[in-house]
Amino acid sequence: MSVPATREEAVSLDGADRLARERERFVLPEGVIYLDGNSLGPPTKASLARLDRVARGEWAGDLIKSWNTHGWIDLPLRVGDKIGRLIGAQPGETVVADSTSVNLFKVLAAASRLAADRSVILSQDDNFPTDLYIAQGLIELGGGRHRLRTTAEAEIARAIDSDTAIVLLTHVNYRTGAMHDLATLTAAAHAKGALVIWDLAHSVGAVPVDLGAAKADFAVGCGYKFLNGGPGAPAFVWVARRHQERFTQPLSGWLGHAQPFAFAPGYAPAPGVARFLCGTPPILSLAALEEGVDAMLAVEPQRLRAKSIALGDALIGLVEARCARLGLELVSPRDGARRGSQVSLSHPRAHEIMQALIARGVIGDFRPPDILRFGLAPLYLRFADIWDAVEALGTVMRGREFDDPRHGQRAKVT
Amino acid sequence: MSVPATREEAVSLDGADRLARERERFVLPEGVIYLDGNSLGPPTKASLARLDRVARGEWAGDLIKSWNTHGWIDLPLRVGDKIGRLIGAQPGETVVADSTSVNLFKVLAAASRLAADRSVILSQDDNFPTDLYIAQGLIELGGGRHRLRTTAEAEIARAIDSDTAIVLLTHVNYRTGAMHDLATLTAAAHAKGALVIWDLAHSVGAVPVDLGAAKADFAVGCGYKFLNGGPGAPAFVWVARRHQERFTQPLSGWLGHAQPFAFAPGYAPAPGVARFLCGTPPILSLAALEEGVDAMLAVEPQRLRAKSIALGDALIGLVEARCARLGLELVSPRDGARRGSQVSLSHPRAHEIMQALIARGVIGDFRPPDILRFGLAPLYLRFADIWDAVEALGTVMRGREFDDPRHGQRAKVT
Repeated sequence: MSVPATREEAVSLDGADRLARERERFVLPEGVIYLDGNSLGPPTKASLARLDRVARGEWAGDLIKSWNTHGWIDLPLRVGDKIGRLIGAQPGETVVADSTSVNLFKVLAAASRLAADRSVILSQDDNFPTDLYIAQGLIELGGGRHRLRTTAEAEIARAIDSDTAIVLLTHVNYRTGAMHDLATLTAAAHAKGALVIWDLAHSVGAVPVDLGAAKADFAVGCGYKFLNGGPGAPAFVWVARRHQERFTQPLSGWLGHAQPFAFAPGYAPAPGVARFLCGTPPILSLAALEEGVDAMLAVEPQRLRAKSIALGDALIGLVEARCARLGLELVSPRDGARRGSQVSLSHPRAHEIMQALIARGVIGDFRPPDILRFGLAPLYLRFADIWDAVEALGTVMRGREFDDPRHGQRAKVT
Repeated sequence: MSVPATREEAVSLDGADRLARERERFVLPEGVIYLDGNSLGPPTKASLARLDRVARGEWAGDLIKSWNTHGWIDLPLRVGDKIGRLIGAQPGETVVADSTSVNLFKVLAAASRLAADRSVILSQDDNFPTDLYIAQGLIELGGGRHRLRTTAEAEIARAIDSDTAIVLLTHVNYRTGAMHDLATLTAAAHAKGALVIWDLAHSVGAVPVDLGAAKADFAVGCGYKFLNGGPGAPAFVWVARRHQERFTQPLSGWLGHAQPFAFAPGYAPAPGVARFLCGTPPILSLAALEEGVDAMLAVEPQRLRAKSIALGDALIGLVEARCARLGLELVSPRDGARRGSQVSLSHPRAHEIMQALIARGVIGDFRPPDILRFGLAPLYLRFADIWDAVEALGTVMRGREFDDPRHGQRAKVT
């Protein structure tokens, strides 16, 4: 546990941090401690420069020709393969497209076809809601061939049985930061003949994932959290090679066609993971995402993970040392190995406390009903930031700043 | 017919053009005549400036707070309503989301539920292929409740019968530029009890559309063609108010939830057209699109349409006068009232001819098997451009520049 006893010790930890210089890649506002990179990552300087080049150089300068001359047409697979390196994928297994929700629909539909003889899609009560909504939407459309069943986190493995078609799980829980053992749960599902879909929204770029070693089936993930791809950056979809050509996903748009520019009236899916493409990709957002991913690929994943755990340990230790008896409870696993790259605390007045923290420039977020969520992005956060954030938390709570009626108003996005 | 007899006459037409100054809003490369704005529109200066503000000011400066403070969360409905003004929509009937293909899937699924007692989705043989692919994907997923039938353009009205669930048509044909009579065909479908889905990809921003007056049911359209929203800009979906709350579309992601930030486990669709949202919108692309739409809203639609027809008439007249007996045939309707904002010509060696034109800075595109397609965006094109483009076409064909082997190679996107 690297819990600094003084701010000087926190600064010393930063001095010894071999990732410290990575912060220089980012554009971060002065006077802000940003603990919400798991909701929207900040831009790298490279992303902003790339956006300029794509907008002014490519779009304005070369117009339609840019699809070829600037390789726009290759971006979904090229950036997909780069993300693939962060999640244990082989080349040709990952493609960037659409949103996480839309991609989940594709793989759920695909997996449903492979497991049509079983009736249950099994998920977790507190999975990120959009994953449950998409399953509900697909089931309703399909006319009831499958039904959705959810259980508590601790019951998942036991709930998998011979009628389980698909296990649909988010690797790192968005509220608590609790991380599933991806390999073990995948093996447990396979042992019962079920397929697994992993949502890596809160994992990719934050914790090492090895889908290949786990012999996983399908995964989706998000571009705008720890990958720092920008607001609403496109998402990705990963499909194990052995499954790719066993079906056609139902969002069979032209970019997933074997010959999109032949304009044939019948759909013929592209070979490989390219068939998970649908419509024309958003090039501006995709280019910004590539730069975010490149920044991630420049560092050693194990080093990133070690710092992430150390930042989390520091935050937990400092809250316990410096904010004791203020009514805060640790929601995230204390064991760093079981925790994603965030720390969540609960308090009955979490919403107001977070508003008061944000007013002081410490940006985390609130998740209903009572959670203070702090995202820990090791590429740009410093141990001194954690020290200062906990200091601010203590000041806010001891000074009861959260009683200020200005902080009582509920923002749309918190 | 405004067919100039000399280049001076063309320049005079530009002098009298009350839209001539609109060109100043755009960033266009020197020495290029851009007749491919129906594939990818060029940027407005305002779009490029907005991208800077959103990336450097909002994303980098205010991070997650921008969802509220810069109104990101409102963009899909706000820009949707702006597009709605171009297509005869009421406020609250249009929303920007996803791609045209994904949006088509949503409305096809919705319409299929409303017309579950009929079996045929009727479309046109040469509809834009992705529309047919999406129908195929949905039908396969739904287990065969509907089947797709296509007919020739001229047979559509006669083919609608009491077993037709949905008529799925593109208003302006992507190859020929032929434009359907939207109101008449909608009425013909309704008379037989069928619903109609209009794809407005080649209409919006180019020809006036009045979905409200036509009592239309559903429409989708594209942001990156005549709306100049940028490469892969998000698309839009329009749903007549009377249909909006009759069903939940199956891509039921969190942004379409009645309370997205309550994180409830069960899907409850938002009231109105917001339920056609799915995942987090791509803000960079959406902001650039808004500026493109604003440029369109600054002009009188009837004036835009009149110039579009005049540009097309000029191009047709000049080709007939100056490129006679070169083997070119007019594919588009001669009657401007039946033509969208493009002119298509056929020639057995169309691909090579277009490559030679592009090499001379006249950018149109090729569509298989033999079509030269010229998009006519009246906001930035001049009659002198049409003169010069036809001059270049004649030069290329008479000089047989298209025999140059360098032009024989097929580009990925042409």
